[in-house]
Amino acid sequence: MNVQTQMTTETMMANAIRVLTMDAVQAANSGHPGAPMGLADVATVLFNRFVTIDPKDHKWPDRDRFVMSAGHGSMLVYAINHLLGYDDMDAEQLRKFRQMGYRTAGHPEYGHAKGIETTTGPLGQGISTAVGMALAERMHNARFGDELVDHYTYVLAGDGCLMEGISHEAIDLAGHLGLGRLIVFWDDNKITIDGATDLSTSTNQHARFEAAGWHVLAVDGHDADQIADAITEARADGRPSMIACRTVIGKGAPNKGGSHKVHGAPLGAEEIAATREALNWPYGPFEVPAEVKSAWEAIATRGAEARAAWIKRKNISDNRDAFEVSLAAPDAKALDAAICAYKAQLSKDLPKVATRKASEMALEVVNETLPNSVGGSADLTGSNLTQTKGQGPINRDDFSGSYIHYGIREHGMAAAMNGIALHGGFFTYGGTFLAFADYCRPSIRLSALMGLPVAYVMTHDSIGLGEDGPTHQPVETIASLRAIPNLTVLRPADAVETAEAWQIAATSKSTPTLLCLSRQNLPTLRTSHCDANKTARGAYILRDVDGPRDVTLIATGSEVEIAMKAADLLAAEGIKAVVVSAPSFELFAAQDHVYRNHVLGTAPRVGCEAAIRQGWDALLGRTDGFVGMTGFGASAPADELYAHFNITAEAVADEARNRIKKDQ
Amino acid sequence: MNVQTQMTTETMMANAIRVLTMDAVQAANSGHPGAPMGLADVATVLFNRFVTIDPKDHKWPDRDRFVMSAGHGSMLVYAINHLLGYDDMDAEQLRKFRQMGYRTAGHPEYGHAKGIETTTGPLGQGISTAVGMALAERMHNARFGDELVDHYTYVLAGDGCLMEGISHEAIDLAGHLGLGRLIVFWDDNKITIDGATDLSTSTNQHARFEAAGWHVLAVDGHDADQIADAITEARADGRPSMIACRTVIGKGAPNKGGSHKVHGAPLGAEEIAATREALNWPYGPFEVPAEVKSAWEAIATRGAEARAAWIKRKNISDNRDAFEVSLAAPDAKALDAAICAYKAQLSKDLPKVATRKASEMALEVVNETLPNSVGGSADLTGSNLTQTKGQGPINRDDFSGSYIHYGIREHGMAAAMNGIALHGGFFTYGGTFLAFADYCRPSIRLSALMGLPVAYVMTHDSIGLGEDGPTHQPVETIASLRAIPNLTVLRPADAVETAEAWQIAATSKSTPTLLCLSRQNLPTLRTSHCDANKTARGAYILRDVDGPRDVTLIATGSEVEIAMKAADLLAAEGIKAVVVSAPSFELFAAQDHVYRNHVLGTAPRVGCEAAIRQGWDALLGRTDGFVGMTGFGASAPADELYAHFNITAEAVADEARNRIKKDQ
Repeated sequence: MNVQTQMTTETMMANAIRVLTMDAVQAANSGHPGAPMGLADVATVLFNRFVTIDPKDHKWPDRDRFVMSAGHGSMLVYAINHLLGYDDMDAEQLRKFRQMGYRTAGHPEYGHAKGIETTTGPLGQGISTAVGMALAERMHNARFGDELVDHYTYVLAGDGCLMEGISHEAIDLAGHLGLGRLIVFWDDNKITIDGATDLSTSTNQHARFEAAGWHVLAVDGHDADQIADAITEARADGRPSMIACRTVIGKGAPNKGGSHKVHGAPLGAEEIAATREALNWPYGPFEVPAEVKSAWEAIATRGAEARAAWIKRKNISDNRDAFEVSLAAPDAKALDAAICAYKAQLSKDLPKVATRKASEMALEVVNETLPNSVGGSADLTGSNLTQTKGQGPINRDDFSGSYIHYGIREHGMAAAMNGIALHGGFFTYGGTFLAFADYCRPSIRLSALMGLPVAYVMTHDSIGLGEDGPTHQPVETIASLRAIPNLTVLRPADAVETAEAWQIAATSKSTPTLLCLSRQNLPTLRTSHCDANKTARGAYILRDVDGPRDVTLIATGSEVEIAMKAADLLAAEGIKAVVVSAPSFELFAAQDHVYRNHVLGTAPRVGCEAAIRQGWDALLGRTDGFVGMTGFGASAPADELYAHFNITAEAVADEARNRIKKDQ
Repeated sequence: MNVQTQMTTETMMANAIRVLTMDAVQAANSGHPGAPMGLADVATVLFNRFVTIDPKDHKWPDRDRFVMSAGHGSMLVYAINHLLGYDDMDAEQLRKFRQMGYRTAGHPEYGHAKGIETTTGPLGQGISTAVGMALAERMHNARFGDELVDHYTYVLAGDGCLMEGISHEAIDLAGHLGLGRLIVFWDDNKITIDGATDLSTSTNQHARFEAAGWHVLAVDGHDADQIADAITEARADGRPSMIACRTVIGKGAPNKGGSHKVHGAPLGAEEIAATREALNWPYGPFEVPAEVKSAWEAIATRGAEARAAWIKRKNISDNRDAFEVSLAAPDAKALDAAICAYKAQLSKDLPKVATRKASEMALEVVNETLPNSVGGSADLTGSNLTQTKGQGPINRDDFSGSYIHYGIREHGMAAAMNGIALHGGFFTYGGTFLAFADYCRPSIRLSALMGLPVAYVMTHDSIGLGEDGPTHQPVETIASLRAIPNLTVLRPADAVETAEAWQIAATSKSTPTLLCLSRQNLPTLRTSHCDANKTARGAYILRDVDGPRDVTLIATGSEVEIAMKAADLLAAEGIKAVVVSAPSFELFAAQDHVYRNHVLGTAPRVGCEAAIRQGWDALLGRTDGFVGMTGFGASAPADELYAHFNITAEAVADEARNRIKKDQ
């Protein structure tokens, strides 16, 4: 095929994206035609000349990753996947863009259709998740070599992605780590929703990326050869590359193109007809001429050949078994054995340690058992205690380590963790202070929405952190995290529960886990060993009574110790108090009614958590008691704060006495 | 005073900061000596030669603003304020650093002590809030001229502040707006908590700031004249300036200085003695020699003179009255009259509009009545409907407008709003989609913690936004916001409640307000006018019954219409259903028991909100019903989503029937 023909074909391939996009948005009467039409040429050249994927095996580990960070341009992805011949993306899916029950959601949703590598839409998440993918690629490569792991991560990002703060964290991290296989295309169309970009930004993106250690190129985003040359150059460079693509938003639409009006609204029948005319596209809605279809399918064929060659390499590789293990679910049996042995030892040793320290101890077991565990912290390694013995740091010259110094970048860390999980090959966790869950909440939400089994290690989980004061003391944070669907929030009470929490986190399949851990020391309360993971039930009776109970005291984390002391006080008065430890409201909610009723009983209840009551209605009725916080904390030593805010055994006992009286 | 003497004095002035810091941290056995000791020289030169403040009137509007963005270095602020002679910062406050009941909290807390311009500690917030202060200074200046408004905003920021994503948003916005009176000192000490900065970052901060349109300078952070020259140059430049100060963390401590060990732990008695020796500081703990004290107090004297001159100018200014009005609380009476007239009209017109549209209509009234209202949006102006007639945009050449195009920078916007409120002179609000509250949550939390009456306009507040799908559909967001102490979350049901919500927002004194507004149209339900602001009670009976009720249906926002329809269905069966509209759980919780019991009644209840149930225990018991969401949304037209997730009048009526049966 000579260049002239190729260019003509590519123009038609790109126009197919444009037309499918405008037709689908029109059919939905909703959606964003601007970005897909503007980026059609870039995407076509990228896929046609570079991307290696095989629609027949969308999970092939060594495929290139493609991330549409400007997720509102989802029709670009759907159009391409339709043209490539993914078997779950027929024309009917495009016709039913944004309709109930179809794969073609308003924004690309991971798991809804093949070939969607990550959920995007919240701006900046795609590019930041892609950094995690590109990092995982290098880490996997360091373990298994070029013959098994050797692919690129391509990202299309818009102005929104680059204005969001998370992009700063992601770009800096990628530049620092020298992720040369990450190539970002910036859709430089000079338009945002409010109008021209000069309404709100004057930043020189070229200089900005260079300042972060990136390789920067600029092209006319509608000139195929310029685009191709830049990609070739970018692939050859050792640094991550940003290719600024000067584009016209809604390119192809003769009247609305180039204006913010084409960003997020259908073109309308008239402009669609004019666009067909302008593009010389005489075909009906969702109709693609055979020559264009076969040009796109040739990409799939090339990918299938590459995959076949890769399978041959893998089958004769010495690394084959280890490679397969890295991609498989963690060895739950081995972990169970190791955790049980460790728990038995704890119940003998009865350590009095902070649960953040207990987390480090449990992580030693987890990381020894799971060879593909990779951890990190947002510059709080010595506080989060996330680095275990032998975990060497990752750096740009050596990706064989298993510890990532994420820097003071909670949001970038969480997005990178999502990317690592999506890439595959690793179990991954990362730490910060619990109060700073707020800094990475949009990415935590995506972990939950995508069902990625990453683990968040969040220490300093209450006023118990003491002197750092209200900015650092979570009071509403735990409630706000319990509110996120499909997130398991665990607040263990002692070293045993912490070990069990890590067992849950490391073997979770489609739910992220978030551990809330204390700064302050706590006694071991699980003094008799059992193999069963009690934490996995969400709540259980830690201290029982003979005969019927008078009251049930329910607590989590560091407050379980307080509830136990309250039970002692009550016992001295002849009041029989059952103590329930409730490390996870979500896991408890998933238990059957019989078990739940057994644990909660029918006696009055008192809850205790050094946090607000919101969310405790999962366990308490309106007339039950609660000992906790009602507002922000303060700066003082931890024990003084507990006394000041009246979160004490005496207060719990008082609440219990009051409830029992009322009940009688 | 000749330069030699001045330098010597300044060295002693700086050493006073160092010694007070290390003594206080030692006394607390907790805290961060590294940054204050490292920045002591920069801070001393800045205050000694440039800063204009008057400790006798810490609220003087034309004072310079000083923000310690690296909030863990709070002792720098306390030491300086002590040395300057603030009357609430005696030596006892320093001795009781980080202790209960003292002003010297672990991180600087706005309102705890004079001279603390904003709460810092969560990294990146200080610098980003300062952008809002510097912007407010220019906006105020554009209205009242140099004679009344002419001051600088100085920020000390560390590596953490510059690594956080929010700094990107803030720096870009400041560069775009050309905020030349903003001067940021970067504490370039090459150390973070995990160790050397090269563990996690390679970014060229100089180039990065230049890319954002800043003026960048670099100095030896321990060379007073270099520092002073740079500040002089920065003040003269029209761009915001970043002065990179090469410092030694913990400077002065002969053994621990320069290492991450000095970042966040006491030096210990031995090193403190060695430091005293090295600094030639023979004075006891918290003792400051008279010559040093008087050198610091001279700064205060200079400031008092400047303030006296300013008062003279103000008293003869034509702008005096308008200036005072801009700083005073909004004219609540005028607003009440305007809103009441507007509400009366609404109850006649009965518009069927989305509450985001109703918000725009109410804002027209608010902005006409409050001359100092300044709004904006994070690039969703046409979706949030935050720009009213006549609101001209702010830009670098003209700060007389009242609308800010914040760009796709939710976090930077929220922090800037805090800064505008802290600066004074404006009522301010800003908009984004409700789902993206997560992107600015750390700054929303600070609005609440500081008690700043800013208003967040958050539209597209449920699955009712339709096709954009789960990434954009809040389901847990409202609950997570209700969890934040001292934040009034308002979810109005129609145009009348929306007007009342804005009245609450615009007259709030020490509580931020967050409006949750629909994308979809809603009927006017408040069909008979009353002057009283019913929304301000948090919940009220919208539809009553004759005689005792059988059931109470409680709903918020767009679901109140559904509850009203359910009441119709039930009425047709002879079931008497009271409908309660509950726009704000917080405001309802603040009502007395008599009113609350009157509204809620004793009949069974059914709640309805297109969101998760968490938080509804404020209004519902465990046995009451709830119609809402249990997980993430989906992409489809809004009406189909409501049907799919079974949030319908029929479902509410069913729940009501079930509860009534159980109750009988």
